[in-house]
Amino acid sequence: MKAAVVPTLGAPLEIRDVPVPEPGPGQVLVKIQTCGLCHTDIHAARGEWPVKPKDQLIPGHEGVGVVEAVGEGDLPVTIGQRVALPWLGHACGHCRYCVAGWETYCTSPAYMGYTMDGGYAEYAVAWASHVVPVPDAVTSRDAAPLTCAGVTTYKGLKVAAPQPGETAMVVGIGGLGHLGLQYARVFGSRTVAVDVHDEKLQLAKDLGADHVVDARGDQQAELEAIGGVDVALVTVPSPAAMRAAHAALNPNGRLVLVGLPADDRLELPVFETVLKGISVIGSLVGTRNDLAECFDLHARGLTRVVTESRRLEDVNACFEEVLAGEVPARLVFEM
Amino acid sequence: MKAAVVPTLGAPLEIRDVPVPEPGPGQVLVKIQTCGLCHTDIHAARGEWPVKPKDQLIPGHEGVGVVEAVGEGDLPVTIGQRVALPWLGHACGHCRYCVAGWETYCTSPAYMGYTMDGGYAEYAVAWASHVVPVPDAVTSRDAAPLTCAGVTTYKGLKVAAPQPGETAMVVGIGGLGHLGLQYARVFGSRTVAVDVHDEKLQLAKDLGADHVVDARGDQQAELEAIGGVDVALVTVPSPAAMRAAHAALNPNGRLVLVGLPADDRLELPVFETVLKGISVIGSLVGTRNDLAECFDLHARGLTRVVTESRRLEDVNACFEEVLAGEVPARLVFEM
Amino acid sequence: MKAAVVPTLGAPLEIRDVPVPEPGPGQVLVKIQTCGLCHTDIHAARGEWPVKPKDQLIPGHEGVGVVEAVGEGDLPVTIGQRVALPWLGHACGHCRYCVAGWETYCTSPAYMGYTMDGGYAEYAVAWASHVVPVPDAVTSRDAAPLTCAGVTTYKGLKVAAPQPGETAMVVGIGGLGHLGLQYARVFGSRTVAVDVHDEKLQLAKDLGADHVVDARGDQQAELEAIGGVDVALVTVPSPAAMRAAHAALNPNGRLVLVGLPADDRLELPVFETVLKGISVIGSLVGTRNDLAECFDLHARGLTRVVTESRRLEDVNACFEEVLAGEVPARLVFEM
Amino acid sequence: MKAAVVPTLGAPLEIRDVPVPEPGPGQVLVKIQTCGLCHTDIHAARGEWPVKPKDQLIPGHEGVGVVEAVGEGDLPVTIGQRVALPWLGHACGHCRYCVAGWETYCTSPAYMGYTMDGGYAEYAVAWASHVVPVPDAVTSRDAAPLTCAGVTTYKGLKVAAPQPGETAMVVGIGGLGHLGLQYARVFGSRTVAVDVHDEKLQLAKDLGADHVVDARGDQQAELEAIGGVDVALVTVPSPAAMRAAHAALNPNGRLVLVGLPADDRLELPVFETVLKGISVIGSLVGTRNDLAECFDLHARGLTRVVTESRRLEDVNACFEEVLAGEVPARLVFEM
Repeated sequence: MKAAVVPTLGAPLEIRDVPVPEPGPGQVLVKIQTCGLCHTDIHAARGEWPVKPKDQLIPGHEGVGVVEAVGEGDLPVTIGQRVALPWLGHACGHCRYCVAGWETYCTSPAYMGYTMDGGYAEYAVAWASHVVPVPDAVTSRDAAPLTCAGVTTYKGLKVAAPQPGETAMVVGIGGLGHLGLQYARVFGSRTVAVDVHDEKLQLAKDLGADHVVDARGDQQAELEAIGGVDVALVTVPSPAAMRAAHAALNPNGRLVLVGLPADDRLELPVFETVLKGISVIGSLVGTRNDLAECFDLHARGLTRVVTESRRLEDVNACFEEVLAGEVPARLVFEM
Repeated sequence: MKAAVVPTLGAPLEIRDVPVPEPGPGQVLVKIQTCGLCHTDIHAARGEWPVKPKDQLIPGHEGVGVVEAVGEGDLPVTIGQRVALPWLGHACGHCRYCVAGWETYCTSPAYMGYTMDGGYAEYAVAWASHVVPVPDAVTSRDAAPLTCAGVTTYKGLKVAAPQPGETAMVVGIGGLGHLGLQYARVFGSRTVAVDVHDEKLQLAKDLGADHVVDARGDQQAELEAIGGVDVALVTVPSPAAMRAAHAALNPNGRLVLVGLPADDRLELPVFETVLKGISVIGSLVGTRNDLAECFDLHARGLTRVVTESRRLEDVNACFEEVLAGEVPARLVFEM
Repeated sequence: MKAAVVPTLGAPLEIRDVPVPEPGPGQVLVKIQTCGLCHTDIHAARGEWPVKPKDQLIPGHEGVGVVEAVGEGDLPVTIGQRVALPWLGHACGHCRYCVAGWETYCTSPAYMGYTMDGGYAEYAVAWASHVVPVPDAVTSRDAAPLTCAGVTTYKGLKVAAPQPGETAMVVGIGGLGHLGLQYARVFGSRTVAVDVHDEKLQLAKDLGADHVVDARGDQQAELEAIGGVDVALVTVPSPAAMRAAHAALNPNGRLVLVGLPADDRLELPVFETVLKGISVIGSLVGTRNDLAECFDLHARGLTRVVTESRRLEDVNACFEEVLAGEVPARLVFEM
Repeated sequence: MKAAVVPTLGAPLEIRDVPVPEPGPGQVLVKIQTCGLCHTDIHAARGEWPVKPKDQLIPGHEGVGVVEAVGEGDLPVTIGQRVALPWLGHACGHCRYCVAGWETYCTSPAYMGYTMDGGYAEYAVAWASHVVPVPDAVTSRDAAPLTCAGVTTYKGLKVAAPQPGETAMVVGIGGLGHLGLQYARVFGSRTVAVDVHDEKLQLAKDLGADHVVDARGDQQAELEAIGGVDVALVTVPSPAAMRAAHAALNPNGRLVLVGLPADDRLELPVFETVLKGISVIGSLVGTRNDLAECFDLHARGLTRVVTESRRLEDVNACFEEVLAGEVPARLVFEM
């Protein structure tokens, strides 16, 4: 099969012909139809995090495809079913976090496109327990970004619990943020979108943001004029953006961080944090339930996914495109 | 009456003879019996915060005494009642935060010993609505530190909601921390006390801490050995202590900040915060309910308050004593 | 002024000419524009509850009008402002429940149209602290039903906290339910409407219910077919409807009760309640915040209020109309 | 091996010699040391619930013993480990409830001593994933009642979330209640114990209840005198006791039901439930985490388990003893 492989950390990916993997007990073989490109894939391919990915990695944790073969065991999915292969490739099911409904913090996890090969290929092996069925009403192209960008922002908001009487701000209207903005509306909150690119500000308007703020202007004054915000979801890896979001928070406000930048530090002002009773909340992707809910919301017509199609052969150019910040929402490889 | 007055911000306090104030409508005149010394009083007297206190300030927001006169109105307290005069001297009662049970974030608050004169005097005027009755089983000397140090740590834990199956760590076993440690036990959690002074480590043992950690040693290794912590309440104004506490947190861990240092910045590592789903939570003092609960817990015998008695005349020396970090828990002025 | 007065409990109301009341300290005089008719008004006029209303009662707790005079004190509203006069006419502001954000359970409350005269009149006196400003974008006719029917169902859902991934059912699509159904959608949940009248089922469809169930058919089977429900808000005073809603609940399901029937008993099956971990939750009206949020949601275009206009002179006929169950949503008196 | 078998539903149990079972893949064989007797075992043996247990049932879901053999697979327990075998014998791990941390409401569960053979025997087979390790500091005799009576009351309180500033009442100080009372104290709440037997009232005093109420007297008056209760955990299958507990609740009060009586109905007064904002909460046993926490609390010295030892041969007499209500807390079979 064709796959995009990381030959050595930091080197450009290579399109190779590699053997189709075989599913072990509890696993399935999935014929990939689409796979989104997430910034994390770039961190992985470049080995930018403290813990390094597997050798000869095939990245990709937004893969979507059809189950073509199943391994041994009494599995919850069947051949022919269309499924998504999210970041959380496997969780143990019996540690303190798994039992409590927080499998994303499992003490012995496997990660798709990081500790396991992922969806930048024609086929991928995944754990049957952790793939998530895709409803008929959701196309594979839409499903891909929902599988990480969607569930990550959805869960980030879920832990911050924006209320209908509150204002929720999403900073960065790209792959993650354009979905986060729509989820903020799903929770009933008044929504604010912040970005620095005209086309993304326009996208935010098209998606129905109640307020759109150009951060190249006087963001703080504009946000004060609308009464401040109660929840701020920051989707850009910029400490300055995080600080600005913190400054706009009302008492009891919640600043949600969902990205995994290589080495960012947020300089948190202690005085303001205490005086206003602010919470800064980290949130990592989402569970299988969370993803099923994202699919359901999309099937119910409550979200719109903005993507551009790409060929896997162009993966290295796509990485550059993302790093340049020029991408209008999410790139999706179609196999 | 005798009072300790701040003549100009930054100057030593002066013991002066000033007129006994008169209660206006909705207010009471309280004959002060005791008043604790909180680090905030030092910030106030020195004008170290962005918003400055009133002119000719009498500090003190841990005053306890007996109602001697009442102003006009249908008031919830009566002459002869013993009450505490906490930091939140008044809240409007109708802003969004007051109505929601968060009067500590009232949009037009008055603060005892800051925007109003406080308890460093023989008498103080307070709002009848915001003084809190002290039960007979709580001495005025014990009640004073509970009025700010107690309620602040109690509320800080309340918002973090430590569970019986969790481990809660308190960093700094001084005026705030020695109470915070006991509240952590009240919530049922396994408790860890951290300090750098032998006598405070000993105090933590005496107060029943499950684990006592000397931060002059390898704190991180010791905390890992006991399985990490789920809640960390930091009562010392030290970014390094906050960072160390953050590093010891388990997934879903909560770092609680309750102090108001003049200009500290916590360098928050974004990657770890997201990867572990950590929350950093600011919490400011507590409501009247919270203070009534602290008094009730004390009356039930669940807390012990460690104090040293001081004369108001020695207020400047006491400030130096606190700044030197030599105080064994809490200083209380007895009038 | 003209007012509808209850001469003796149980007798028909009389339209009388009575003196315009004068606002005391802390109070305002409001020139009433509209007032909704709530089933509670009928209970009040007939004295059907254990605690009886005031003598010579003027009912009405959905009054909306303009402040025409103000009493003594530093009040949060001004002459000329348009405000709503909800059921909770006053709360003490310092009991355990008020301080905690639950003023609706105040230990010494005043109720509009019950312990105080209400909005079935040309003028009414209300406490300045507890009237709620009506935004310009909300008409007085729409504001009236929001003032009780709206806030009651909104708060009932708020305490049950329906999630976007859940299904919320509203039973009875009348004055309360047609708003409850829209709030369920605001919270992001999949919605189910249940009723037994064709025109109300049609209204539910028009309001965008995801599923509409005719309870004259096999309700249980239909609800099972869509996967059961997670939250059920019952707005009709029928124990049979409550039991049927209970039977449709999934594990962790929440049955919300918001009505105050004179003497209903719900026969709760203990086995099913425990086996499924079901909660039955009582909820009484809402706070000033909750009502302000309802107004805000309406101003944002998220709800539609269905009313029919009536003359106060026809109050007795209107009572009969409501009791006959023939009312298409909410009757509103326009003065 | 020796086992107590239900020959036909409703017949006395028979002590038989049956083959030692063999663990399948994912399972373990446990040599039972102790097994508590829970009222549920009686319901099971008599077939009193709508869904019937397996044929030739060996009851028991409070079994504790040592792993003697393991089936195929990568299992989280090892030979020689001491474990408990709780009611939730297995959960699927991938349904909506399992993923959300609510495995007790799994859609395809197995129950020890009901759908699987249980601990009334010298050996039992259990799923490795769902046995819970017993710490060294917890004896097998103490561990047995914690395995159901303990975790059930602990979880029942956990979902009701009693606060340190609240009063929690436990009704029935028997096998479940004597542990529930201690957990209420662990959560920091003021505790009230209610019973009708002198020795159980005495036990409640010995266990440190703040208030002990004899329900043969005027329970309602006594509870009013202490300010009512905020949480009531009812451990006796008596609708009258549930109603009395409901009547004693303060606003925002929570009535927790944890028993599975064959056909009880609680006549819930709707008016009071709404007027006070009361919640009635069903709660079924607890998860593996909850049980591990109960063991940890016991190891930390926070609970005392009151048991009487019995021989398995006397199982039928023991059933009679329990039904007569004469048992001082919990009977435990020692093998």
